[in-house]
Amino acid sequence: MEKEPQLSVMGGGLVGCLLSLYLAKQGYKVEVYERRADLRSAELAGGRSINLALSDRGWRALETIGIAEDIKKVAIPMYRRVMHDVQGNLSFQPYGQAGQAIYSVSRGGLNMALLDLAEAQPNVNLHFQQQVLEVELKTNEVTLLDNATGQEHTIQPDVLFAADGAFSMVRLSMQKTDRFNYEQSYLDYGYKELTIPPAADGSWQLEKNALHIWPRGQYMMIALPNVDGTFTCTLFFPYDGEVSFKELQTPEQVESFFQKVFPDATALMPELTQEFFENPVGSLVTVKCFPWSHSDKVVLLGDAAHAIVPFYGQGMNAGFEDCTILRGLLEEHGSDWKTIFKTFQELRKPNTDAIADLAVYNFIEMRDKVADPRFLLQKKIESKITAQYPDAWLPLYSMVTFSPDLPYSQALANGQRQEEIMRQLMVHIATEADYDKPEVQAYLQSQLA
Amino acid sequence: MEKEPQLSVMGGGLVGCLLSLYLAKQGYKVEVYERRADLRSAELAGGRSINLALSDRGWRALETIGIAEDIKKVAIPMYRRVMHDVQGNLSFQPYGQAGQAIYSVSRGGLNMALLDLAEAQPNVNLHFQQQVLEVELKTNEVTLLDNATGQEHTIQPDVLFAADGAFSMVRLSMQKTDRFNYEQSYLDYGYKELTIPPAADGSWQLEKNALHIWPRGQYMMIALPNVDGTFTCTLFFPYDGEVSFKELQTPEQVESFFQKVFPDATALMPELTQEFFENPVGSLVTVKCFPWSHSDKVVLLGDAAHAIVPFYGQGMNAGFEDCTILRGLLEEHGSDWKTIFKTFQELRKPNTDAIADLAVYNFIEMRDKVADPRFLLQKKIESKITAQYPDAWLPLYSMVTFSPDLPYSQALANGQRQEEIMRQLMVHIATEADYDKPEVQAYLQSQLA
Repeated sequence: MEKEPQLSVMGGGLVGCLLSLYLAKQGYKVEVYERRADLRSAELAGGRSINLALSDRGWRALETIGIAEDIKKVAIPMYRRVMHDVQGNLSFQPYGQAGQAIYSVSRGGLNMALLDLAEAQPNVNLHFQQQVLEVELKTNEVTLLDNATGQEHTIQPDVLFAADGAFSMVRLSMQKTDRFNYEQSYLDYGYKELTIPPAADGSWQLEKNALHIWPRGQYMMIALPNVDGTFTCTLFFPYDGEVSFKELQTPEQVESFFQKVFPDATALMPELTQEFFENPVGSLVTVKCFPWSHSDKVVLLGDAAHAIVPFYGQGMNAGFEDCTILRGLLEEHGSDWKTIFKTFQELRKPNTDAIADLAVYNFIEMRDKVADPRFLLQKKIESKITAQYPDAWLPLYSMVTFSPDLPYSQALANGQRQEEIMRQLMVHIATEADYDKPEVQAYLQSQLA
Repeated sequence: MEKEPQLSVMGGGLVGCLLSLYLAKQGYKVEVYERRADLRSAELAGGRSINLALSDRGWRALETIGIAEDIKKVAIPMYRRVMHDVQGNLSFQPYGQAGQAIYSVSRGGLNMALLDLAEAQPNVNLHFQQQVLEVELKTNEVTLLDNATGQEHTIQPDVLFAADGAFSMVRLSMQKTDRFNYEQSYLDYGYKELTIPPAADGSWQLEKNALHIWPRGQYMMIALPNVDGTFTCTLFFPYDGEVSFKELQTPEQVESFFQKVFPDATALMPELTQEFFENPVGSLVTVKCFPWSHSDKVVLLGDAAHAIVPFYGQGMNAGFEDCTILRGLLEEHGSDWKTIFKTFQELRKPNTDAIADLAVYNFIEMRDKVADPRFLLQKKIESKITAQYPDAWLPLYSMVTFSPDLPYSQALANGQRQEEIMRQLMVHIATEADYDKPEVQAYLQSQLA
C-alpha cells in the first residue's frame, strides 16, 4: 500500500468486531467506535435478546478466526423443536439430519470473545462510548459524542464501515442522499423476555437440547436454553387487540392469562409477573435499503444494511456471512474499494432480501403451523423425500440453516418450488404410510428423478 | 376555546397555505414557517415542475376558499391526450366526457395566490426562510434556522401540522420513534424539463388544449401548455443503461438522439441542448409511512405523509384532498386533536396508498401502452361501455380525476374489477364494430346489468 488508509468501523457488536479482525488480517489499521460502554466491564441490560441461534453460516465465520471450538464449548446444541400444547402435551420436529443442530449462544459472551480477539490485534483500536451524531458524506467527516466525557469530536476516515445496527446513524445520513431506497417496517407484534430458572440441583427444567415453542395461532412463546441452567423465554405477542400487551395490565391478568394458555411453562416461572412488568416490550423491525455504499468511502453491513426479525435465527448468521463475503472481496480486489463495495452490495442484496422475507414467513410457521398435525405430517413426508432423493431435495429449513454454500435467495427459490410439489402431493396423503402409494411415488419420480 | 392553542404549520407550499386558511377559518391563530424565501419577491428556480395538473379534487378545495374562478382564468384546460409517434403522426384519447378536462396551472402562480390569501387573514402569520433543523417530539420543540440571519431559534407550538414536503424534516424526527413504518422508493428514471417556446405571433406551437405525449416504450416525453404560449416538456428517462441520461453527455449526442426519437418536438426546441445541460435531472420518489400523527401534537399531511410520482397528475390534488378531509374533521371534532388525527390518518392512508400505486402504474401506461393500437381500441370500447351502462361503469381515469366524491381506494378497486372484465371482453374484439357482437353484449349484460 502506498499511503496507509485510515479505516473506521462504526459498531463494536458481533459484526463490527468480526469485520475489524478481517480488515486487520489484510494489514489495515482499524479504529472501531462503539456507542455503548465496554461489555466486558459493564453489566448487560437484562430483558433483551440474551441468547442467539448460531448455525452453519455463523460457525463458518467463527472458524476463520479460530474461535469456533471455544464458542462451541459454551454453546448448547438444539436438535429439534419441542412444541407444547395447552394441555402440556409435547410434539417434536427435528431440525435436520441426525447430529445437525442450531446452537444457543450468549450474545454477550460471544461479543466479549470477539472484543478480546480484536483488542489483541496490534492494528485494531477499540473506542467505547462513542456515539455517532452525524456523518458528512461529502467529506467522510463523522461527528462523535464521547458519552464518558460529554465532548464532541470528529474523525475523517478514508473508508467507513458501518456495522452500527438496525438504527444505524450512518444509514440515516445516506437516507438523505438522492435515490437512496429505504424501508423500515414493523410487525404488529412486540416481544418480552422471561425466565425459567434452573431446578434446585441446577439442571434444566425442560429438555435441554431443544428449542421449545408454545404455538398459539396468533401468538407464541419460545424458550432457548442457557449454559447456567436457565431458559430464556420470549413471548411474541400483539401490541393491540383482544389478546395483547395492552390488555395485560395487572399481575392478576398476567398470571391468569399465562395459567390458561401456557400452564406447563407458568408452573416453572416463579418470577413471571415481576419480570413481565420489569422487562421492556421490544419491537420487531425489518429494514431494507439500497445502495449499501456511498462512492468508494462508506459501506453498510449487518443489521445496518438489512435488519431482520428473529424467527429464522439468521440475523447474526447473515451479518457474519456479510463479513465472509467482504473478506473474499478484500483478498481478491485489494484496496479497490469501489469494486469491493459494488460487488458486495450486488451479491448480498438479493440474499438478505430473501432471508428477511423468510424470517417474517417463519413467524407464521412457528406460531401457528407447527401446532397443526397436517403440517407435522408434511414435515415427516418431506424427510422421507430427502432420504429417497438426497441430491434433489433438501428441506428449506436445512438449506437456510445447514447449507452455508447455498445463497439465501437460492434457498428461497428452491423452497418455493418444493412447496408447490408438496402441495400437489399432500392431496394424496392422509398418513405417513401413504408415502408409498404408487401415485405419490410416480409424481415424485416425475418431479425429482 | 379556553386557552388559545398555538398552531404551527411547517411549509408554506400549496398544502401548507390551504391548511392554514382552513385553520384560520376555524378561529385559530396560525404561524406558517416556510424554508424558502417568499415566492412573491423571489425568482422561481427554473427547470423543475413549473406546471401542475389540477383536477376535480383540487378544484373542490379551491372553491371552498373562493379562488377557483380566478385560478381557472389562468388555467389551461387539457381535454385529451395527444400522442406523437416517431414519424410525427398524432393519435388522440379524450380524458373524459365532452367538456371534462384536467387543467395545466402554474405551480408558482397558484402558490402565490394562496400566500396572498393566507397573508390577508389577520390570524395567519407567514415566516419565510425558516428551515426546520430538528423536532423534539416529546416537547414539540422545533429548532429553526433563519436563513436570512443565520440564527437558530426555537418554537414550541401546541400542535404542529407538517406540510413540509416529500423530504419532511418533521417526518424524519418521527421516523426515529418506535414502530414508525416508513418507505422511500425511487424509480430508476429521472426527469428533465425542457421548453417549446411560442410561435413568432405568441401562439402555441402544438395543440393548446391537450397534454402531449411522446411514448417510446421504456421512456417518454410529455408537454403541458402554459399561459405564456410555451409548453413545458418533461423527459422521463432512465438514469443508466443503453438509452439513458448517462449516455447523453455531449450536445451532439443530445441533438442526434432527440432528432431520431422526437423529431417533431425537436424542430420546435431551439434551445434544446443548452437547456438539457443547464437544467437538473430530478428524481422520482414515492414515500409511504404510518402513523401520520404523534400523540395529539403532530400530524403529517400532503407530500410529507405520501409523496407520489407525477404520472397521474394527482400529487397536489391528493394534498388538497387531505385538507378537505381535515377541514371536515375540524368542524366535527373541534379541538379534539387526538380524534381528529386518528380519524384523519385512518381515513386517508388507504386512499393515498392507492393513488401512489396508481401513479406508478400510469407511468407504464403513458410511456408504453398509449402507443399500442390495441390499447387505444380498448379505450374506445370502454367509452362505449360507459355510454351504455353509465351507472355501472366509469373508466378508472375518470374515477380518479373527475369523481372527487369517490375515494382513491374505491377507484382502484373498481378499476381492477373493470380491468378483468375488459381482459375477458377484448378476446372477442378486433375492431370497434365488434362491440355489437352478441357474445360481447351478452357478457357485458351478465356483468353489469
